[in-house]
Amino acid sequence: MITNYAGISPKTDLQLIERLAAVLSGRSMLHVNSTRAGGGVAEILHRMMPLIQSLGITVRWEVISGDEYFFEITKKFHNALQGTAVEFHDDMWEHHVAVNTANASSLDLEADAVWIHDPQPAPLIAHRRGGLWVWRCHIDASEPQADVLHHLASFCRNYDASIFSVARYARFPGVPAFVIPPSIDPLSDKNRELSAGEIAATLQQFGIPPDRPMLLQVSRFDRFKDPLGVIEAYRLIKKYNDCILVLAGSSATDDPEGEQVLQEVHQHAAGDPDIFILLLPSASDHAINALQRAATVVLQKSIREGFGLTVSEAMWKGKPVIGGATGGIPLQIIDGQTGVLVHTIEGAAFRARQLLNNADMAHRMGRQAREYVRTNFLITRQIRDYLALWAVLMRGSTSPEEFVL
Amino acid sequence: MITNYAGISPKTDLQLIERLAAVLSGRSMLHVNSTRAGGGVAEILHRMMPLIQSLGITVRWEVISGDEYFFEITKKFHNALQGTAVEFHDDMWEHHVAVNTANASSLDLEADAVWIHDPQPAPLIAHRRGGLWVWRCHIDASEPQADVLHHLASFCRNYDASIFSVARYARFPGVPAFVIPPSIDPLSDKNRELSAGEIAATLQQFGIPPDRPMLLQVSRFDRFKDPLGVIEAYRLIKKYNDCILVLAGSSATDDPEGEQVLQEVHQHAAGDPDIFILLLPSASDHAINALQRAATVVLQKSIREGFGLTVSEAMWKGKPVIGGATGGIPLQIIDGQTGVLVHTIEGAAFRARQLLNNADMAHRMGRQAREYVRTNFLITRQIRDYLALWAVLMRGSTSPEEFVL
Repeated sequence: MITNYAGISPKTDLQLIERLAAVLSGRSMLHVNSTRAGGGVAEILHRMMPLIQSLGITVRWEVISGDEYFFEITKKFHNALQGTAVEFHDDMWEHHVAVNTANASSLDLEADAVWIHDPQPAPLIAHRRGGLWVWRCHIDASEPQADVLHHLASFCRNYDASIFSVARYARFPGVPAFVIPPSIDPLSDKNRELSAGEIAATLQQFGIPPDRPMLLQVSRFDRFKDPLGVIEAYRLIKKYNDCILVLAGSSATDDPEGEQVLQEVHQHAAGDPDIFILLLPSASDHAINALQRAATVVLQKSIREGFGLTVSEAMWKGKPVIGGATGGIPLQIIDGQTGVLVHTIEGAAFRARQLLNNADMAHRMGRQAREYVRTNFLITRQIRDYLALWAVLMRGSTSPEEFVL
Repeated sequence: MITNYAGISPKTDLQLIERLAAVLSGRSMLHVNSTRAGGGVAEILHRMMPLIQSLGITVRWEVISGDEYFFEITKKFHNALQGTAVEFHDDMWEHHVAVNTANASSLDLEADAVWIHDPQPAPLIAHRRGGLWVWRCHIDASEPQADVLHHLASFCRNYDASIFSVARYARFPGVPAFVIPPSIDPLSDKNRELSAGEIAATLQQFGIPPDRPMLLQVSRFDRFKDPLGVIEAYRLIKKYNDCILVLAGSSATDDPEGEQVLQEVHQHAAGDPDIFILLLPSASDHAINALQRAATVVLQKSIREGFGLTVSEAMWKGKPVIGGATGGIPLQIIDGQTGVLVHTIEGAAFRARQLLNNADMAHRMGRQAREYVRTNFLITRQIRDYLALWAVLMRGSTSPEEFVL
């Protein structure tokens, strides 16, 4: 129930949601993506569905299916949108469309508002029977390759609007583009309040001492997250400050490279008993929550990042976060106010020592971080924006200033 | 038509196929896999379908579909079967089964013989309505992780038989296992005879000089294919012998690592004008055929290899092949007779120089290579084995000596 967020989310958001619900109640909304589990899009949809439903809106979620080749192709789209050179052939464009045509005949696409998530189901637009259609692109499209941009734009231009997480990703011509960042749910297992006992139990489970300053990075073991750079920063800090380092991530073993990066991390840690490398099962929301709450300083030293919601997760827990100045991280961290942005290993180490040595500064920054997330990155804000966009499009206007953030 | 293979394939294979067709004619065969395009399984099915149909057997091919998470999970199966540590959760086993249950209700699974290819559709066995069911595993299962072995074995044991490409991969308990290696089609664009003019045109297209000794490796740009090792071997050879090196592969840009390997290859080649690095579109059968026919010595210096049909492709063209002693390569190369097996860069360089300096030895080896492929690795032999296994299982016997290779 949306009312559960009273006292947590900004009152103005909840009021606006209520007003929008009065307009939209009785109507139907459909979300279509390509996976029911795995990844941030599915995570937020699972949380969002019952909340929207509780507003009197009938909301459904359909998942398209395809063969293995289809998902190989759409993975290539993904890479080609973020700057990896990829070679495409005509049969790939055709297969992308053909699989969507097949899905169109088995899915129920009737709804007043249809939210199509990411490139996989984008061609479904050819089968709209009415209703508003919005293309919601979650992925990093910062360096799109021309041919894939052209291919996706050919669908995109038939939508009523498109939504991107970061303004810089909105490079698809021919359709009104809106920027709606993703969000975290303060009532989910990953973010809800924990008791001191719950936090202590998690630390004990991993053998992490509860009484020493703790640096934490939560992320997949992926080169773009720079885990080796984090270890080097920790070594620079350790020269002057006692601390432990926790690197926690679920296994990125989609491809053998994840395993290789994990091995490099272990080699780089070189048996240091103060470095804790935790390979977590993918459904470790509770453990991640406890670790974030136990941390003294949180790092997200990414070299590349789609949005980086782990930053908002830690900020929501009142932690000072040191983030790489890339992707969506600068949208969450206002340097020196709601956290610290860094560009180098040395910068990360310097800022971490400042925060370790100055508890007041750390607390002030954490407090501001939590307030900033409350205002900007909670799920209620995202629901507000989705519904506001819907209402605005319904009126046939494309100037959403009165509703949208 | 199978008769097109007269004079190419062994007469005994064609005769046996004829006899088997007399037994099986009028019956129906169904193949089920997870992709219509991309990869060796689809390549061989595309060639095999019309040939089996021409024998009077009704043959169909169904493709299962799933969501993105499904194919993430089955990719993890793949990695975990070949020795990469992967973490699985219960919901993954369940999702694998649930997607197959959904497919079972939309696919027509009725046939006298059902060939289920690889782990993705393996759980379909729960929905058999009759007929013989065979699980055909194409992938490298040399170092299976216990939990994924257990999961797949729970389906496997309900099949009438299982088939593996290499005996060492047949580790699934509880079902009769047969070894049937994959094959190449001598009449496909990749392997058919080419005129001297066609070969010359391809070389000209890539700017490759036609008049110098040419070393060739055809493979994806993947660390397991050791392209950097090939360049080092070439440098050792080049100290004493004039030659050029061609590295040709389609872009392995499923993941960004493929792109990174390609960059390393370019760096390692360091602008040497005698090294030709060709990034080919995935449907470059004709060009690969021409390059293989133009080569003096062919390398397949893999460190890890499922089966390695590029070896048989080059052997069929009468080329001496230097192969890494891994995966299915030693099944194709009898060391010193049908090619050369190597374990090191120095070994590869030494053997390549022997072959470059001794044209008689190279020709003799190439002749033997072609004969060995004719006997063992042509598509007719694989059709023979599939039909023989079917006939044997029909009789309720599991001793296929009278039919199978």
